[in-house]
Amino acid sequence: MTTTPTTPLTEKQTTSVIKRQKTIGYAAHSPETPLAPFSFERREVGPRDVQIDILYCGVCHSDLHTARNEWQNTIYPVVPGHEIVGRVTKTGNEVTKFKTDGLAAVGCMVDSCRTCASCREGLEQYCIPGFTGTYNSEDKILGGVTYGGYSKTIVVDEDFVLRLPENLDPAAAAPLLCAGITTYSPLWHWNVGKGSKVGIVGLGGLGHMGVKLANAMGAHVVLFTTSEHKKEDGKRLGAAEVVVSKNQAELDKHLESFDFILDTVSAAHDINLYMALLKRDATLTQVGAPEVLNVSPFSLIMRRRSLAGSLIGGIKETQEMLDFCGKHGITSDIEMIPIQKINEAYERMLRSDVKYRFVIDMASLEK
Amino acid sequence: MTTTPTTPLTEKQTTSVIKRQKTIGYAAHSPETPLAPFSFERREVGPRDVQIDILYCGVCHSDLHTARNEWQNTIYPVVPGHEIVGRVTKTGNEVTKFKTDGLAAVGCMVDSCRTCASCREGLEQYCIPGFTGTYNSEDKILGGVTYGGYSKTIVVDEDFVLRLPENLDPAAAAPLLCAGITTYSPLWHWNVGKGSKVGIVGLGGLGHMGVKLANAMGAHVVLFTTSEHKKEDGKRLGAAEVVVSKNQAELDKHLESFDFILDTVSAAHDINLYMALLKRDATLTQVGAPEVLNVSPFSLIMRRRSLAGSLIGGIKETQEMLDFCGKHGITSDIEMIPIQKINEAYERMLRSDVKYRFVIDMASLEK
Repeated sequence: MTTTPTTPLTEKQTTSVIKRQKTIGYAAHSPETPLAPFSFERREVGPRDVQIDILYCGVCHSDLHTARNEWQNTIYPVVPGHEIVGRVTKTGNEVTKFKTDGLAAVGCMVDSCRTCASCREGLEQYCIPGFTGTYNSEDKILGGVTYGGYSKTIVVDEDFVLRLPENLDPAAAAPLLCAGITTYSPLWHWNVGKGSKVGIVGLGGLGHMGVKLANAMGAHVVLFTTSEHKKEDGKRLGAAEVVVSKNQAELDKHLESFDFILDTVSAAHDINLYMALLKRDATLTQVGAPEVLNVSPFSLIMRRRSLAGSLIGGIKETQEMLDFCGKHGITSDIEMIPIQKINEAYERMLRSDVKYRFVIDMASLEK
Repeated sequence: MTTTPTTPLTEKQTTSVIKRQKTIGYAAHSPETPLAPFSFERREVGPRDVQIDILYCGVCHSDLHTARNEWQNTIYPVVPGHEIVGRVTKTGNEVTKFKTDGLAAVGCMVDSCRTCASCREGLEQYCIPGFTGTYNSEDKILGGVTYGGYSKTIVVDEDFVLRLPENLDPAAAAPLLCAGITTYSPLWHWNVGKGSKVGIVGLGGLGHMGVKLANAMGAHVVLFTTSEHKKEDGKRLGAAEVVVSKNQAELDKHLESFDFILDTVSAAHDINLYMALLKRDATLTQVGAPEVLNVSPFSLIMRRRSLAGSLIGGIKETQEMLDFCGKHGITSDIEMIPIQKINEAYERMLRSDVKYRFVIDMASLEK
């Protein structure tokens, strides 16, 4: 996710000299080279900033796409990571929401224009000039590019820092910051709740969160997977039914019955199979991003169905999601790795060999 | 539009002997042969039926697709026509809404199950077991198949007959029964009104009605056409702006600005050009039916946009549309033809050589 830099720096920012501090992390220096140790600078804490010692960082598919320049927008060196959980080590003198030693979290955004219609509605993810991504975005304060959570520390304006419920395992909570909000936001926006019949397509990092969250919202959850062996796990995670989508007869039992379907699959797949399962006026929302979706217009027209998309979630909504997860005891199923295994983890992700999210134990950085 | 016959006949219908009367029309007997005169039978007027002497019948692209079996579902011989305006010549003794000699109209449906959730909501076009199409559907009363409006008379249950406002030219009003309602229904459903910025893609039979109706609803209408020479006509019909969609710079002026876009184009085209013009949370609705729509997921995801479809409209809504057209003096721009020119008209439609709808003067049938 890149942003188009259009917001001018404020006078205060441009005239004051921004102090810097050193930190360390892991960066990719080219599409072909493995991630490796990297020293770089963060800004010193400003009046509204929170400095966080990163404990855990989830590993998102976007990290891999960006590290390898698969979206043709990477600025090297790149420090990926936008599922960040840590402990507050310092706060600016105007900060009111965070205190030293408390847990805090940072997701996919560290700033936005704050003035456009989307920002004013708390939907910073749809910021019209473009939000500042946690990595690979223009750093409007320090100059250069933003660096993400595969690192020791991060400094973020408190408006873009989240409170983490104390009852959640902080490592397993890290993936909530992207995989969690990416699935929570559309489920919430399209009114999933008690009595809804909801389909989740795909059981990966996003899909397994979708199953847990939709189930906690009170929906009857049907998981669609191409893998027969994922049936049991789907049920354990909260699906009332698991349908192997290669089996047309199984799909046909669900024709025209869903209130909402969340499609988390990034690989090429036939969404018309799932469109046919929606009720009249219902929506299938795509959060994975295959290169192209080949849609049969008849599946839309004959039942006034909609195909939509959704991007992460706003800051207010992300906090609501974390509080919801705190209340329901929801975290991600994770496999913890040291940062030294990040390149191997990327290879395993490409083989879907992870249940269901890698999380980096950032203490490993100094080993 | 075909229906799956699942509603059983009522006891009354199956035990009574349905009387028949002869009529004449034009039918296709195979995909390759031209339409030609055809004698067939209608039922005699039952207690709830209205018999209509057809004055005018609009020529819809569906007629051509069905006559030539392009949807692989045609039952021959087929009498097309579902934009029917005529004069009532006889009514059953339980009919309350129509009187002999009054004007009446029939659109794409002549019956539905009347009991499913869609029918109960007045959305018979989405009848779950399937509505009875005006032609090429199972005739559940007489047996065999329904025959459409390229004919002298038709007999229809009064619940599926519409009142035509007396101030409208009945010939030019005929296309309202399909082209009119197909565009009115989505404009209404997606809340087009005063202050909306609405795009209409394509200036054919559907598109020209979309421009007129959206303009009458109070919207700022932008017509998208590939034909430079249609600019003037677009403005005459009610578009505030006409954009030649081959010109990317013209499109770019409208990025992220539309509340709603109605896409009426049936030929293959790149809808991503138009998706990018929608505001956050806005919808593009397809009423034309290209074989496949190739959608870029990013255009959906980055602004939570929707791509939807819509099918004609319910009976109640069709009456509201006719009343709206009466109030605003809206009809179709038509070219009148005798039935003997129907095959030539089909060829001209394939070349888009009609402004903007052919209407058959049914008096020609007996010449």
